Amino acid sequence: MAKEGVEKTEETEQMIEKDGGKEPAESNCVKGGGGGGGGGGGAGDDKEMRAVLLTGFGGLNKLRVSKKVMPEPQEGELKIRVKACGLNFIDLMVRQGNIDSPPKTPLVPGFELSGIVEALGENVKGFEIGDRVMAFVNYNAWAEVACVPVDFVYKIPNEMSFSEAAAFPMNFVTAYMMLFEVANLREGMSVLVHSAGGGVGQAVAQLCSTIPNVTVFGTASSFKHEAIKGSLTHLFDRNADYVQEVKRISPDGVDIVLDCLCGENTGKGLGLLKSLGTYILYGSSNMVTGETKSFFSFAKSWWQVEKVNPIKLYEENKVMAGFSLLNLLFKQGRTGLVKDVMDKLTRLYNEKKIKPLVDSLWALEEVKEAMQRIHDRGNIGKLILDVEKAPTPLMANDSTETSEAGEEEEDHEGDNENKERMPFIQ
Amino acid sequence: MAKEGVEKTEETEQMIEKDGGKEPAESNCVKGGGGGGGGGGGAGDDKEMRAVLLTGFGGLNKLRVSKKVMPEPQEGELKIRVKACGLNFIDLMVRQGNIDSPPKTPLVPGFELSGIVEALGENVKGFEIGDRVMAFVNYNAWAEVACVPVDFVYKIPNEMSFSEAAAFPMNFVTAYMMLFEVANLREGMSVLVHSAGGGVGQAVAQLCSTIPNVTVFGTASSFKHEAIKGSLTHLFDRNADYVQEVKRISPDGVDIVLDCLCGENTGKGLGLLKSLGTYILYGSSNMVTGETKSFFSFAKSWWQVEKVNPIKLYEENKVMAGFSLLNLLFKQGRTGLVKDVMDKLTRLYNEKKIKPLVDSLWALEEVKEAMQRIHDRGNIGKLILDVEKAPTPLMANDSTETSEAGEEEEDHEGDNENKERMPFIQ
Repeated sequence: MAKEGVEKTEETEQMIEKDGGKEPAESNCVKGGGGGGGGGGGAGDDKEMRAVLLTGFGGLNKLRVSKKVMPEPQEGELKIRVKACGLNFIDLMVRQGNIDSPPKTPLVPGFELSGIVEALGENVKGFEIGDRVMAFVNYNAWAEVACVPVDFVYKIPNEMSFSEAAAFPMNFVTAYMMLFEVANLREGMSVLVHSAGGGVGQAVAQLCSTIPNVTVFGTASSFKHEAIKGSLTHLFDRNADYVQEVKRISPDGVDIVLDCLCGENTGKGLGLLKSLGTYILYGSSNMVTGETKSFFSFAKSWWQVEKVNPIKLYEENKVMAGFSLLNLLFKQGRTGLVKDVMDKLTRLYNEKKIKPLVDSLWALEEVKEAMQRIHDRGNIGKLILDVEKAPTPLMANDSTETSEAGEEEEDHEGDNENKERMPFIQ
Repeated sequence: MAKEGVEKTEETEQMIEKDGGKEPAESNCVKGGGGGGGGGGGAGDDKEMRAVLLTGFGGLNKLRVSKKVMPEPQEGELKIRVKACGLNFIDLMVRQGNIDSPPKTPLVPGFELSGIVEALGENVKGFEIGDRVMAFVNYNAWAEVACVPVDFVYKIPNEMSFSEAAAFPMNFVTAYMMLFEVANLREGMSVLVHSAGGGVGQAVAQLCSTIPNVTVFGTASSFKHEAIKGSLTHLFDRNADYVQEVKRISPDGVDIVLDCLCGENTGKGLGLLKSLGTYILYGSSNMVTGETKSFFSFAKSWWQVEKVNPIKLYEENKVMAGFSLLNLLFKQGRTGLVKDVMDKLTRLYNEKKIKPLVDSLWALEEVKEAMQRIHDRGNIGKLILDVEKAPTPLMANDSTETSEAGEEEEDHEGDNENKERMPFIQ
């Protein structure tokens, strides 16, 4: 999908498969040869599938679409034919290796998806083939098929589209748990959220509107203000001195600060809290600072984070918390709690009190442009990879990146590792 | 009140006023002369009152009972004839000067009291003369009369005694707000509380019992176990390795850690939390380490406190909080919120779900022994200064302290400052 202000990262025109249906059997258009573009969309045969591959940590050029061996469900897993995947800021951090204990590359990125149950592993209860589902995965979302343990899968409400369902789990569970599990949001409270135009920001704004008389302060790039101003009480430019702006309106500060920035903002955020207020660090988007200097800037940000003396919290009656949904799910095993939260959230969706805001849909082959858009903070709401979508044709002069095509192309019949490294679209 | 295991700090036998009633008019028994004890109890004339005076920061010898000018209520204040006062660990810290921005001495210590409304300042609504009340004060509790702004005064439930009412505000509001305002205690959770035999510890245990299926781990000196074991699920000796003990029973840790210790325990407490768990530092009794080395040990404890990196909280999904009720009331002005909490607590008291546990009653003249008892962790529940109680006679050989009697005795008819410094009982 071509969007204004997004740099095009593909070198050549891409072949488009017009009929991106579920079972287009053998219609893949893969061209060998240096510099050639491949065709996207559609499921392949039953032994292979398309997936976005991260070949190593670094810039956008580490991403490509490739073929991978079709996964089959193990005991307790569901095989899901993926319809749509969520693209989150954490995916940019993964791409740069800016996470604790990064996994080995090559890998298929992505932590959430929606789709249709295609097969059930042994001992899977509560789901049937054909069910519309959304799921968290620990990588491997950005593919045509994913196999997911049943504890991470949730049924999609009837009225929710696959795109909405791919935009739902990460942002709304994160927002809900921060507001209601960690911070205990109640009537009359006030909340400050950064990146108010992003997926979590919009989920926070919507969930705050379900509680009477909650004041929501937000920061966002000025060009987004017109689009999102209805969802917040007070909106500031992201480059403004938000501490001064908030204090001008609410001299006592706010009850909850949700901080996805990190670094110098921790002190600012704690300083803005009312007594008994809660500061929650839920991400660290300041760490993604550029295309190449990732490791250095990561380490720099990490060590610059201001440590906090518990006695200061005691004197000021303040609460400091961190929230990482992925760690909660995949390191700390709190799937039961998250399931309860998903139940509450689907009820709120069915009551039309919340609704994921989708910014734009992108083909798997457009993942670089999509990432660039989130990196540039161009999005309002969630970016979705639509697995069945065909890439938008690009003009040759849209190119901004030197192709690595030809360097790694190999025969499709090689072993698995070769298949994973094989560029499908470059 | 003489208790087993409590050192006696008075040198000589004390005169006892048998009829410690409210208006014993001019019955004070003050003896001049070196080494002579004075008689306690009873209100004096309407221009003077008895009060405990802290003459400077340091050991027990800085405390004495003195006469002070009778206070009169200003606009918005109630004049309260005090019946009983609470003695808290913070009072020991005040005595040693172990608090941030200590006030000037001489001062009258004490932060909570119960009594009867004797007069109303202008513009006081909601109270009448004769009302039975309990109150927070910012010092000046340990006296026969206190004038208190109306926002800090609460009516006593009919069935609650004055002793219970003096044991109620600090401990139960602190426990309630930590469990329900800061940490959001819910069914099925687990709580670790140190000093489980103290006033806050017992309030925590009782409040936890109002929520279904809450597991309470506590630490306390072994000799208290028999008395308090019924109020906790698991009880460990205070010198045991509680981290190991808790993990043996609950390998995943606990949901809430309430830490009144400070220092090395912050890291231990955070380490014991489940994901989404809350560590609350609500006091720092480790800071009171001895009679004389107060300032040094204070500074040492303060700087040794382990600072916490917010990113660690993020990775582990943990919450770290501090809670100081006195700061909340007197620095941060949250009297409305505390009033709401007191309303909830009095309902729970009337429903017989909670009841303050009083350890012992002491005359004002026995404040040193009472402080020694709390310092030695001899108490089970709350120590109360009973303003109308007469001191228990002591044998001459109970003495453990060199009297300063005679050094500062002056005529009662001196100016105010002299009155304040004048020993009433030594």
